[in-house]
Formats: sequence, C-alpha cells, structure tokens
Amino acid sequence: MTKQERAARTRQALIRSASTVFEQHGYAHARLVQISSDAGVSTGALHFHFDNKAAVAQAVVAEASRGLHELSAAVRLGTDNALQALVDTSHALVERLRNDPVSRAGFRLSCDGDKADVPDLRLEWHHRVRELLDEAAVTGALAEGVSREDTAAATVAVTAGFEVLGRSDSAWLAPRLLTGFWSLLLPRIAADGTAALMDPSGTRAAKPRPCAPAIAMPVGRAVGTAAGRAEPTAGVN
Amino acid sequence: MTKQERAARTRQALIRSASTVFEQHGYAHARLVQISSDAGVSTGALHFHFDNKAAVAQAVVAEASRGLHELSAAVRLGTDNALQALVDTSHALVERLRNDPVSRAGFRLSCDGDKADVPDLRLEWHHRVRELLDEAAVTGALAEGVSREDTAAATVAVTAGFEVLGRSDSAWLAPRLLTGFWSLLLPRIAADGTAALMDPSGTRAAKPRPCAPAIAMPVGRAVGTAAGRAEPTAGVN
Repeated sequence: MTKQERAARTRQALIRSASTVFEQHGYAHARLVQISSDAGVSTGALHFHFDNKAAVAQAVVAEASRGLHELSAAVRLGTDNALQALVDTSHALVERLRNDPVSRAGFRLSCDGDKADVPDLRLEWHHRVRELLDEAAVTGALAEGVSREDTAAATVAVTAGFEVLGRSDSAWLAPRLLTGFWSLLLPRIAADGTAALMDPSGTRAAKPRPCAPAIAMPVGRAVGTAAGRAEPTAGVN
Repeated sequence: MTKQERAARTRQALIRSASTVFEQHGYAHARLVQISSDAGVSTGALHFHFDNKAAVAQAVVAEASRGLHELSAAVRLGTDNALQALVDTSHALVERLRNDPVSRAGFRLSCDGDKADVPDLRLEWHHRVRELLDEAAVTGALAEGVSREDTAAATVAVTAGFEVLGRSDSAWLAPRLLTGFWSLLLPRIAADGTAALMDPSGTRAAKPRPCAPAIAMPVGRAVGTAAGRAEPTAGVN
C-alpha cells in the first residue's frame, strides 16, 4: 500500500468514526480525541487531515452528498420509467439512512446546524426529485394535471420526516412505511393505467448493497451498483 | 394583580423567551442569563421558577404539548367528519409551527435531544392522527381497503418533514404545501364520492388565532377557539 493509499484509508476511517461520534453525542459534544481513538489513529493523524471539528463535519456531509449522488446515478440505470426511478431512489435513500452512519450523520449535520459551509443535502434531494418528476412529465409517465411541485414537496417532506423520526426510532426507516406512502400516492400520480405496472416497494435494481458490513443480506438479493464504502480504498476522494 | 398572577405571567414570559433563545442558539448553547434578560426579569426570578436549563426546556415542551392538545380539541368541534378533522388539525399544527416559537422550540427539544423527561410530541401527534383515522374508519369516512397505518405514517412523516425543513426555510411551513399533500391524498383515502366534498386546505374552523401577537390576521378570518397565549393570564398553568 502506498503512502497515499494509507492516507486515504485513514481519512475514510476518520469520517466513519466521526459520523458515529456525531450521531451519539451531537456535534456540540463530539470530541476529536474520541473520533481519532475510535478510528484507531492518533490525534496527530486526525489533525493531518482536518484542521478542526468543523472540517471533520464538512467531510462527513461531503461524503454523504457523494453517496446521495452515487445512489441516484446507480438507481437511474435500473429502470427507464422516471416515476419508478423516483420510487426506487427514495427507497435507496431510506435504505442508506438505515444502514450507513455517514449518511445519517451527514443529513443531520447538513440540516440541523448553522454550519454555513456544508451543502444542504435535503436541497440536493429536492433537486433530484424535481429532475425525475420533470422527466416523468416529459415522457408521459406522470398523470395529466398532477402538480409536480406538490408531489416533490410531499416526497421530500415524507423522506425528511422518516429521516428525523428514524433518529429516535429506527422503525421509521423500515421499507414498508415508504412502500405504504407510494402505494397511496402512485395511483394518483402515475399516468392512466400505469400505476399497476409500478412497484411501490422499489424494483430490485433500486436496492444497492448496504454500506454497513455488519448488516447481512440474503445472497442474490443485492444488485450491487453502489461502491462498497465499508472498505475504503485509495482515490476515493 | 395578585402575587400568584404575577408569578404565572413571569413563568409564561420565561417560557416564551426561552423558546426563542433555544431556537436561535440550540439547547447546548442557550444561556439562562439571556433567557431571563429577554423576558425582562432577573436570573433570580428565573431560578425561582426553574432549577436549571433542563427544567426550562421541559416547561417549553410541556407548553407545546398543551398547545397541541388544545388545537386538536378546538378543531374537532369544527367538523363532524373525522377525515376533515385530520386535515384541519394538520393545518392547525403547521400554522402553530409557523407562528408560535414555543411550539417550534417544543417540537425541536422534544424530538432532537436526549432529554428523557420530556413528552415526545411527534408520538403524541401520531397518536392523535391514529385516533382520527380510526374514527374515520368506524364512521365510514375512510375508503374501503385504505391502510390506516400507512396513512398515519405518511401524515406524521410529512408533517415532521415540514417541521424540520421549516427550520432553515419557513417557506416549507406555507399552508399551500400541506394543501398540496392533502389534494394528492384525499381522493385516495376518502370514502367514494366524498373527496370532492372535503377541503384539502382545511375548513375555516381549523384556523385558530395565531399565538404570536406580531402576526396580523384579517378581521373576521380567525375563528378563535385556542386560548390566546400571547397575553399570559393567571391560572394558565
């Protein structure tokens, strides 16, 4: 392993460890010494990568943002119906929130605090939802007369709600709740006669491998398109 | 004014001031000296009412919980259709979040922190949503085959989402977004032929007077059933 590879691996370990510490203690009470210790490195190594706690938080949000873009792109390859892609992407997002501490911490840091220099992940998600709805409208997948703004707002709000409710009770991140939402909504927004052809629980291609290695997945279920972030590799950043 | 009345008024002023300080600085960075100063009282007066910052936060959440129960009861008097009552209560809740710092801070403190001794407002809201959906099912207002669990989860998640998104951009608490959600959902969940009779923007009775005195309301619009908390009176607590 080259020096550069080792550095990239350490940086990833610090981001992952920081995510867990931010989740457990909140940003205000998170301690850098615990972040470095949990990552198995010295505080000197942490300071080699990050100037201060704000910089660590920025890196966590950036990594979560990268994950969001990655899953959006991966899911889009799995279906040619933009509305199904919206359903699938929302399931992939909620699955990521369920299994990946970096995504959870990233959303929390990005949206709760007053940190000016981090991207707003909910805004990025809103943007993606709008893109898919616009595409669904253009391609005739969306029913006539459906408000894209209302649909986008409901989708973003419901996923933001699951995210924030899931912080104190992870049952809110169960796939069946999101499936229930789409079961209610799809017959209202899918073009005539197409709702029955769609899968409110997401198509298989929407289910990338979970990021947390501790979660066992039945063999053959995962159609892996997302990069396995559990094992950091050089050149990731 | 009796001594008791003055004490109750001071306590309300402290709760209101604390709500604003918690909102601006977060619980961790909120300072008791600012809370008492903004309420126009001494720190001694604050400590007469509250042992510490946690006790102040508890009082804020308790007051927000009281507001939630109060608006639920007030709205229920305005309609005999339980599904319309659900729509109306959700609008009253979002209006409260828009106009009342105590409700905003209460939800935030109740749900974000690790404070064990405060009621979970989202859980209380979920309970109320389930009650109204159960009543709608029993009275035939709910369409056959609609999952009450899915509808409740979507409703709670979407309102929790508006609440949390509204923290950084109050446009998310605009009534039209919630109206959009109900416009999409009502035709799916209302009993056959009744959706057209319902108002996704809430009936007038659902709009109690705003709590914040700074918000001007057109004369004649407010059907006031909620107690006016802007002017604290004796015996409120």
